[in-house]
Amino acid sequence: MSSSPKTVSRAKQGEGTRRRILDLAMAVASKQGLGALSIGDLAKKLCLSKSGLFAHFGSKEELQIATLEAAAQVFEARVVKPASDAPTGLTLLRALLENHIAYLEASVFPGGCFFSAASAEFDDQPGRVRDHLAERMRAWRDYLRRQVQIAQEAGELDRSADAGQLVFELDALVREANFAHRLMRDPNAFEQARAGIRQRLSAIAKQRGPALAKKARS
Amino acid sequence: MSSSPKTVSRAKQGEGTRRRILDLAMAVASKQGLGALSIGDLAKKLCLSKSGLFAHFGSKEELQIATLEAAAQVFEARVVKPASDAPTGLTLLRALLENHIAYLEASVFPGGCFFSAASAEFDDQPGRVRDHLAERMRAWRDYLRRQVQIAQEAGELDRSADAGQLVFELDALVREANFAHRLMRDPNAFEQARAGIRQRLSAIAKQRGPALAKKARS
Repeated sequence: MSSSPKTVSRAKQGEGTRRRILDLAMAVASKQGLGALSIGDLAKKLCLSKSGLFAHFGSKEELQIATLEAAAQVFEARVVKPASDAPTGLTLLRALLENHIAYLEASVFPGGCFFSAASAEFDDQPGRVRDHLAERMRAWRDYLRRQVQIAQEAGELDRSADAGQLVFELDALVREANFAHRLMRDPNAFEQARAGIRQRLSAIAKQRGPALAKKARS
Repeated sequence: MSSSPKTVSRAKQGEGTRRRILDLAMAVASKQGLGALSIGDLAKKLCLSKSGLFAHFGSKEELQIATLEAAAQVFEARVVKPASDAPTGLTLLRALLENHIAYLEASVFPGGCFFSAASAEFDDQPGRVRDHLAERMRAWRDYLRRQVQIAQEAGELDRSADAGQLVFELDALVREANFAHRLMRDPNAFEQARAGIRQRLSAIAKQRGPALAKKARS
């Protein structure tokens, strides 16, 4: 069974419309919150019918989750992917943290960190949006913690350091920068986060051990 | 000129009503955000007339600011006041941070940290609510920074440490605990914040110098 050119073109058109809806939804939600998303408002602004929008997202909750997913893809493209060539461990950890800060500094979303804002909004509203957010946050922290553990196994970081504690502190510094920048327009916020990260990592960084040097040569 | 007993009693009644309105407004706003406050809804829940509520708060913005002020008084009573007997400097700094964590841990507001939630909500909405929030946050950080500086002058903390950087990091740890606890129900969040604070302060703490010991004896 093959699709006719007409079907393919219609599917493409549908994908383009979905993309436009989600781009606007991300911009609105980053400034006013996911709760402010309205299928009616989005339809009006994009000159689409309300029923057309409903065809893409059956409910407000579906739209909210699709918007979160779209924001997660932006995060992936801006923070995770550019670091993907870095060797795992300390180098990747540093690259991920720096990309995260640079992404907040660049105000990729007009309302700053999409996930921090959505988390403050939904942390007390049980349901799929909240679960989705918590899962994303857990996955990000797990990814950072894995890099800390790889760095410890490779002898780049002190093995006695508590990886979970370190990730908690590193993530805290980045989130605080977003907060201080957004609310207080603090011009030092991002540099303070960078300085804190440098300090925390250098406090438990180790010189390359002989085992590692040997491995690198082989 | 003296007030009649009738006037005094009416003023007292008005004060009581205002208090009831603000208590409910804080509970609603801490879970659903300041934007969700509605004079109509509050009036209904408290069995008051809408015009009666308008007599206390002329607009939604006035109500939002009065709610913030009420929340600030709770913070003052739970975090700042219980530490007021502590000697200024390192002891007061530690007491303020511990009280802040204990206050979040106790979930004084059903929705967690009132100011973090309100900040995420209003950081992109220019106006009096946002200005008020930013001012409160600045004042809190200034108060902490003053204690760091006193501690440095007294030789309790290393004078070469950057007080602004330290306060940024300490505040980050407390805010991250609130975030991790609210969104991810992380049972270690508060202990991780405490451990981070202990580590940061002990890294720049100094043994009591002879000058201070002499002062303490006199």
